[in-house]
Amino acid sequence: MSDAAPPVAVLGASGYTGGELVRLLLSHPGVEITYLGVREPEGRSIDQIHPFLAGAADLKLGDLSAEAASEKAEFAFLAMPHGLSAGIAPKLLEAGVRVVDLAGDFRLPADEYPAWYGFEHPAAAWLEKAVYGLPELFADRVAGASLVANPGCYPTPAVLGLAPLLMAGLITPDPVVVDGKSGLSGAGKALTESTSFAASDESVRPYKFPRHQHTPEIEHVLGLATGHTVRASFVPHLVPQVRGVLVTSYATLAGDVTTETLTDALAEAYDAAPFVRVLPAGAMADTKRVWGSNVVELQAAADPRTGKAIVVGALDNLVKGAAGQAVQNFNIMAGQDETTGLSSVGVYP
Amino acid sequence: MSDAAPPVAVLGASGYTGGELVRLLLSHPGVEITYLGVREPEGRSIDQIHPFLAGAADLKLGDLSAEAASEKAEFAFLAMPHGLSAGIAPKLLEAGVRVVDLAGDFRLPADEYPAWYGFEHPAAAWLEKAVYGLPELFADRVAGASLVANPGCYPTPAVLGLAPLLMAGLITPDPVVVDGKSGLSGAGKALTESTSFAASDESVRPYKFPRHQHTPEIEHVLGLATGHTVRASFVPHLVPQVRGVLVTSYATLAGDVTTETLTDALAEAYDAAPFVRVLPAGAMADTKRVWGSNVVELQAAADPRTGKAIVVGALDNLVKGAAGQAVQNFNIMAGQDETTGLSSVGVYP
Amino acid sequence: MSDAAPPVAVLGASGYTGGELVRLLLSHPGVEITYLGVREPEGRSIDQIHPFLAGAADLKLGDLSAEAASEKAEFAFLAMPHGLSAGIAPKLLEAGVRVVDLAGDFRLPADEYPAWYGFEHPAAAWLEKAVYGLPELFADRVAGASLVANPGCYPTPAVLGLAPLLMAGLITPDPVVVDGKSGLSGAGKALTESTSFAASDESVRPYKFPRHQHTPEIEHVLGLATGHTVRASFVPHLVPQVRGVLVTSYATLAGDVTTETLTDALAEAYDAAPFVRVLPAGAMADTKRVWGSNVVELQAAADPRTGKAIVVGALDNLVKGAAGQAVQNFNIMAGQDETTGLSSVGVYP
Amino acid sequence: MSDAAPPVAVLGASGYTGGELVRLLLSHPGVEITYLGVREPEGRSIDQIHPFLAGAADLKLGDLSAEAASEKAEFAFLAMPHGLSAGIAPKLLEAGVRVVDLAGDFRLPADEYPAWYGFEHPAAAWLEKAVYGLPELFADRVAGASLVANPGCYPTPAVLGLAPLLMAGLITPDPVVVDGKSGLSGAGKALTESTSFAASDESVRPYKFPRHQHTPEIEHVLGLATGHTVRASFVPHLVPQVRGVLVTSYATLAGDVTTETLTDALAEAYDAAPFVRVLPAGAMADTKRVWGSNVVELQAAADPRTGKAIVVGALDNLVKGAAGQAVQNFNIMAGQDETTGLSSVGVYP
Repeated sequence: MSDAAPPVAVLGASGYTGGELVRLLLSHPGVEITYLGVREPEGRSIDQIHPFLAGAADLKLGDLSAEAASEKAEFAFLAMPHGLSAGIAPKLLEAGVRVVDLAGDFRLPADEYPAWYGFEHPAAAWLEKAVYGLPELFADRVAGASLVANPGCYPTPAVLGLAPLLMAGLITPDPVVVDGKSGLSGAGKALTESTSFAASDESVRPYKFPRHQHTPEIEHVLGLATGHTVRASFVPHLVPQVRGVLVTSYATLAGDVTTETLTDALAEAYDAAPFVRVLPAGAMADTKRVWGSNVVELQAAADPRTGKAIVVGALDNLVKGAAGQAVQNFNIMAGQDETTGLSSVGVYP
Repeated sequence: MSDAAPPVAVLGASGYTGGELVRLLLSHPGVEITYLGVREPEGRSIDQIHPFLAGAADLKLGDLSAEAASEKAEFAFLAMPHGLSAGIAPKLLEAGVRVVDLAGDFRLPADEYPAWYGFEHPAAAWLEKAVYGLPELFADRVAGASLVANPGCYPTPAVLGLAPLLMAGLITPDPVVVDGKSGLSGAGKALTESTSFAASDESVRPYKFPRHQHTPEIEHVLGLATGHTVRASFVPHLVPQVRGVLVTSYATLAGDVTTETLTDALAEAYDAAPFVRVLPAGAMADTKRVWGSNVVELQAAADPRTGKAIVVGALDNLVKGAAGQAVQNFNIMAGQDETTGLSSVGVYP
Repeated sequence: MSDAAPPVAVLGASGYTGGELVRLLLSHPGVEITYLGVREPEGRSIDQIHPFLAGAADLKLGDLSAEAASEKAEFAFLAMPHGLSAGIAPKLLEAGVRVVDLAGDFRLPADEYPAWYGFEHPAAAWLEKAVYGLPELFADRVAGASLVANPGCYPTPAVLGLAPLLMAGLITPDPVVVDGKSGLSGAGKALTESTSFAASDESVRPYKFPRHQHTPEIEHVLGLATGHTVRASFVPHLVPQVRGVLVTSYATLAGDVTTETLTDALAEAYDAAPFVRVLPAGAMADTKRVWGSNVVELQAAADPRTGKAIVVGALDNLVKGAAGQAVQNFNIMAGQDETTGLSSVGVYP
Repeated sequence: MSDAAPPVAVLGASGYTGGELVRLLLSHPGVEITYLGVREPEGRSIDQIHPFLAGAADLKLGDLSAEAASEKAEFAFLAMPHGLSAGIAPKLLEAGVRVVDLAGDFRLPADEYPAWYGFEHPAAAWLEKAVYGLPELFADRVAGASLVANPGCYPTPAVLGLAPLLMAGLITPDPVVVDGKSGLSGAGKALTESTSFAASDESVRPYKFPRHQHTPEIEHVLGLATGHTVRASFVPHLVPQVRGVLVTSYATLAGDVTTETLTDALAEAYDAAPFVRVLPAGAMADTKRVWGSNVVELQAAADPRTGKAIVVGALDNLVKGAAGQAVQNFNIMAGQDETTGLSSVGVYP
């Protein structure tokens, strides 16, 4: 582990998140990719699945085998569909491999899985040891963790925006409204009529509410971070862009609190956080500005007419909302600088 | 007025809403365009400003003159920037011309204008006589009105979604959250860096909150329709599409109310409304499906975990959110069939 | 046939072209839809496949049966994948139904089918009787036809742009370059990774060249129209939009010909054509301006440095490039006004 | 010059190209930005003009002064509108600063400027010494140059695709057709109605042809590279995306040449070029795959029916088409590895 560039595996390299992970890890100076697993390797190399990697990565693919990965790697990133990590992660962990799971399999208490993910959790003991990998709030725990649950793309900006205000007593633990907007890459690579270009362009629409699995994640992690029990009404929407998640949260102000006070509290909370950009009062968060970077932008405003605090967070769902945050967690776990291999500047326009 | 095809004027024909009005009126069998006014006519015809009208409309432009318009027309549509209608409408009305104003100048009580629009209302007497032109709720008043205030693009779906539930006692008059998403045509034709293609693509961002002028409109009209005082936290967002507004409203459920009950209440309220499509429980509203039509889609769901009713409304902001609704109001005022010249089928995909 | 509103069938109503046909026919005053056929009717009505038609069309679906259709209809529109019409059309024709085929099955000489479409044509006798339905060039033949081959989306603007210049002797029959750009709806509704929003946004790319089946169609129809044999190098590209085809053709100028001469020749050729808009010299064609309409925009320029005539054509591929042109052909066949039910004004922006 | 990280200036830092240059230079290990010049500095820092750079670059802005820049820098990147570099570059050069000009001011012979750029070139002596900075063809000359003319976004892929085929005798010097497609960032940051989101979405359209200034650049550089005089018919188009240029060139095959022969010739020519990706026969070039990278993708096909070679090239216009290629030229001039600070992997999707 004291390795300058420890060997790592990516299981589930064929999706958008997997491709982004490989892209980031290829240019990361403190890591060596030694194993890439996909469901159907068929003798292919990674650039046959992701042609944008052509020339950069002549890496052969293996299958989704914990055994094969644990022979080659000290760390494993799991970027498979929900439900698979819960079966594979324990085998890796038992073989001494430290794991960052990008699925939802280790983010919730065991008793929430049947209702929100539709399965009984098969590894409740490991689940209890998992650390929720939101470094800005839980970096200390991440550092020594064997198993890190990488956060969801919506909970990341929602929790980062609300937790400091709740801890500072500027908002109350009343139920919050979290309205999320996401680009189409968040829907993954699977083919559906609704994610075709023709069906998605000029289309903004909600989906899967009020039963989206990020609902209990937002509630659970707000509880972890603040000690308060907070309920969330969460409605995710698809908007016609590829990358980008923006969440707008509405909480109850604890008295006569101003936009400046809210903004100062966020700025103070993330003073030392390299990837959180708190916008000055009146400036508006924008997914475009963080595109391709690991930055989350936060904006807060008080609405005294209704007694609401409105907190907006924006990030690139494939970077800070998935692969970038996983690398950030890895950096902390591996004792490297938190920012290694990650950009704090978006690609614009 | 008993005219089969009364002569009408459009003042403010050069913007996107003005162009859409001319397009709709050109194919409307019960109307004749007799005057088109713009700020700088310069001897041009309408198709020089809107080349998509080439061949269809060889209409010369006049200036924004109430006098000239009232000589030629019995009805006038005003599609100018906020603040101009308040000055011009009274002159038209005094000349006997019936007016549909698409700006915000006649939508609020007089005392709200300084705070939300930045001007003292110059025609408070006419303001009191103005009828808010949301035909699904106020058709009776529209029929006989001389001056109709055509609703804003966000208030239309927000109010249509919430009012029947409030009247039925299914939600309480507690403050509501209204989260709006709009395409770029809603920002108008004026050139700004933020509305360029390069800056808007891959960008979802809030704007102008918490002081957007549709906030008091939503509150005021909910009061008009239901008798209840309701406060709204309203945050509008721009999403990278041209047309389409979707609002997601979060209200407090009055007890143990189900998605089916909410849906039934909406369906019943709009049973006879030709342009309201209430979606069955579980179906998701979509701006794409109503593109180019005068339809508003409504969807409701109960979230019993948080005690919230979530109501989603989608429309084409240039049609049902502006020009189409103005034509619908005109139809009612002129005693024509409400649906004349309007489509209830979107252009898809 | 002297019917004011003859009964018509649409076979293949489930795709984008089929949906557009139904939309146009529903608002067409001179037609009655009496049969809609799809591959898997399963007891559904058309609005279950095309929810944007909800409320407008409570039409039950049948299967792709020539027999069922011919019992109910005098005209049939075939909007099925290439290869199916060649089998079904003869049965309809033998039952006395007049047919507009939107596939490529009746556009080429029989001996071209194996090379370009991959099948031996099963109905060569009918193929010889088919009329190529480009009304601006062949309206006379369309009027009396039993079987009309509705043109492809690329050949329509390419041929309309080049044919008059060739006939006028302003360009030579040297090989032409035809560079085509199409929105994603042209790729149809079938799910492929390459037509997902995530893969198509920010992507311009050629496809299927130099063996696209519109190549021989352009050549064959230029021959039909002008008597000249002209070879075409044709490369189609996908661009990230839903609707719209723009073709840029490069031909050899026959001597010292100016932009004005080319423009005048086009303007004269289409003087009486209600759906062709010849742009003045220097104005640029634009797919957006014809969106949703049956208009094709044509623009010509001479490039004396290289001795080339450059002709640009733009249309909406689902309207003038498919369903709208089919309705235009039907109008002519049925003795109705050519423009009935079709718009010459696009929806903008 | 033997400096590990020489000080550099960027004049014209406020546009899209300027912002991209700053982004690339900030993460470039072998350079230090010491001066940023804009037209109206007004005491601002760079992140006030480019908020996406917030936190990364606390650099104060100066004005567009050759004097100020030459006091602080050994190299200068000029990213100003056409016409300004020709005046400023000589002053920098005379002060010993080596210059990479991203405008068109040093790309053509002096006698071409009046016709294509509208001005008499004010520094013809320097113009003769300028080296055209297409490193894949002219790296040797770039290495020792004081003044490098950074190529245009269209000429880069057009010339890289055609030159090797011409040199290998696989195509003839007959006039070529070059059909270009570009995203909106290529139109720059200036506000125009035609580059708004509402006007550009769903719009593909040609512009500025047949007099676009990249026409003589393509011709001149093909001559420089091959010794042949080649005329080009060039038509650029805008497509609704932000980044990405794709050019499709049509040349005359020199006899019986196959797709494989063309492909092999390109592959051989660029065997050692780190940023040229020659696609295997049948694979299609795609702007999306090179997004954010300095890669140009090339694809060739023979069309034996018409005797044409069709060559397609794709790149990111702000990287390989502008700022990235400028950094590549700088790397060579400064004796650093050609690839320093540049990515050969795009950001996908």
